[in-house]
Amino acid sequence: MIPGPVSVDDQVLEALARPVRAHYGDGWTRLYKRAVSGMREVFKTDGEVHLVFGSGMAGIEMCIASVLSRGDEVLVATNGLFGDRMAEVATANDLQVHTIRPGQAEAVTAAHVNDALAAHPEVRAVCVVHHETSVGVLNEVEGICRVARDHGALTVVDGISAIGGVPFEMDAWGADLCVTVANKCIGGPIGVAPVAAGPRALEALVDGRPKAAGWYLNLATWRRFSELWSEWHPHPTTMPTNVVEAFDVALTGLLEEGVEHRWRRLAAARDRVREGLEEMGFQMLSPLATASPVTTAAYGMPGMDVADYMAWLLREHRIRIGGGLGELSGKIFRIGHMGRAAEPDAIDRYLRATADYVEGHGLNRASTA
Amino acid sequence: MIPGPVSVDDQVLEALARPVRAHYGDGWTRLYKRAVSGMREVFKTDGEVHLVFGSGMAGIEMCIASVLSRGDEVLVATNGLFGDRMAEVATANDLQVHTIRPGQAEAVTAAHVNDALAAHPEVRAVCVVHHETSVGVLNEVEGICRVARDHGALTVVDGISAIGGVPFEMDAWGADLCVTVANKCIGGPIGVAPVAAGPRALEALVDGRPKAAGWYLNLATWRRFSELWSEWHPHPTTMPTNVVEAFDVALTGLLEEGVEHRWRRLAAARDRVREGLEEMGFQMLSPLATASPVTTAAYGMPGMDVADYMAWLLREHRIRIGGGLGELSGKIFRIGHMGRAAEPDAIDRYLRATADYVEGHGLNRASTA
Repeated sequence: MIPGPVSVDDQVLEALARPVRAHYGDGWTRLYKRAVSGMREVFKTDGEVHLVFGSGMAGIEMCIASVLSRGDEVLVATNGLFGDRMAEVATANDLQVHTIRPGQAEAVTAAHVNDALAAHPEVRAVCVVHHETSVGVLNEVEGICRVARDHGALTVVDGISAIGGVPFEMDAWGADLCVTVANKCIGGPIGVAPVAAGPRALEALVDGRPKAAGWYLNLATWRRFSELWSEWHPHPTTMPTNVVEAFDVALTGLLEEGVEHRWRRLAAARDRVREGLEEMGFQMLSPLATASPVTTAAYGMPGMDVADYMAWLLREHRIRIGGGLGELSGKIFRIGHMGRAAEPDAIDRYLRATADYVEGHGLNRASTA
Repeated sequence: MIPGPVSVDDQVLEALARPVRAHYGDGWTRLYKRAVSGMREVFKTDGEVHLVFGSGMAGIEMCIASVLSRGDEVLVATNGLFGDRMAEVATANDLQVHTIRPGQAEAVTAAHVNDALAAHPEVRAVCVVHHETSVGVLNEVEGICRVARDHGALTVVDGISAIGGVPFEMDAWGADLCVTVANKCIGGPIGVAPVAAGPRALEALVDGRPKAAGWYLNLATWRRFSELWSEWHPHPTTMPTNVVEAFDVALTGLLEEGVEHRWRRLAAARDRVREGLEEMGFQMLSPLATASPVTTAAYGMPGMDVADYMAWLLREHRIRIGGGLGELSGKIFRIGHMGRAAEPDAIDRYLRATADYVEGHGLNRASTA
């Protein structure tokens, strides 16, 4: 029940083990295009989608570096590890990076971004993580997109652990670039990062300014091959064909369930986890209004050794959960509700185990004493 | 029998379908480090190895962009599609690119590179493909490394379809950076590109000059995390854990067989294919001295419709082979001898099928007429 990579369905694993197919030709191109078209439904966009062979951060670097030039000003709104990572990527691409950072486990809001843009009028792009996994907080992406657009800036959304699990509407909200991965809310295997680009991003791509991106992580390269070799090999290099085949199975499952239904189902899983933990006396890191439907972060109880609790869960119940990162290390734990971990049975097993631990260590008595 | 991706053993596919494991923690780190250490044996280097999550070209871009600065001069020795791709990548990173290109299907030699370095004394790195898959030719990498080193330039070797299948000794030859992929001669699944760096490359990495690379495809980033999070998460981002698990199975198989034995076995497979085709009257693209042990390229016979032959093989015998690329399209066909395609039985089945086609279309009568 970690916040990713997710445990995937058996049928996804089975697809992963099909004999290797070539990454070109009619059959492959049909599969690739079906997955691209499915992802447009998930992103809720009429824009372009490419399945980038690499990690989610590779996809994010592609978005940032493909539309910005070295020296450009960029605003990174961050409230955790993955937001900080976006700033690191922007800095490594020689961008001039302004960051805003609300208090710990607090959501980044449109108002934060509005103020920062007023202070830095030259900012060309706003980067934000939709679901900051390190604290289980959802940021106010819809409002941030609006504010950025009013300012004439592009928005780059890290939707890695959000897309497919959290309400998001790329076109309606006016997000320009968005990245996710196969192996979070979509429930596929690790291996590709779907990247979506709207019309303003595609304009920036060809505005004639030299961009920070090189060859592979350059959206222009992927775009060129998707046109040049459209019917045979619509991407610049080899693709992990087995991964895409298994991803297609997971994606088909998501579309059959319905994207909105999946959003509601994960939110219900979160509610079940939160309520269960709160009943035992655990305190949540964030209020429900900004709590992610994908990951629940809770403080350890007074006197509780969080590392011991996590090790015990793994040893006694084969349940792996996430720990706190950075300064929250040892203070919080995090439960993912993606893939199989969102099933009520799995959640109940986890809650019963935790209740046993709390009982066995006298933590409930300690906290009510 | 295409020149990659290879068909992989059942046990590799089975490993691919094991339940998803996390990309951090003790068990994962042990697996990752075992694969890294195995790859050092395959590269024959005491240098550093990282398993880059991306395509082979992503690994190549990492090598080129991590040690060179924008504006640096670089020499790309090319005799085909993949060499040209290296030049494209270097250009996209704002390097000043000099290319040398011998005649069609001719090997690039140390003498070619020596002459080019005399004409361009400022060149800081020489880029060369070891096995140019598009024409099935082996380039003179050992001599090229020596010449480059004498000149004070680094050598970047694209070993994508060579490493593990063709004699190569990174340290003994003095290659500085070398890239391969899991899914060619090693027989693993598509998903990671092992990148090796020797001492001179690591010096260049930290020589204080700003490099062309950004964040993800920057060897410095991978190096930093391999030290910073060494015992827990020795790479900067998520890794495709299932792929690495299956790659480890394939790599273990290679090491058990013995790297030198694998080299000899593929060369024997090539000889079997060449002899069989030559007996039927086919003309090879390259003389044996420069012919790759991994891919055999042959001209179609006079009056032969190569596309029809390839389609017939696939339809009647479920054997897929490679066609010619670029100006060789329709003129040649290419047989890969990696993975299962190197087995004598598979080769004999292919040769019998081809003999039937030749006989059935009266091509042998035409050519001897």
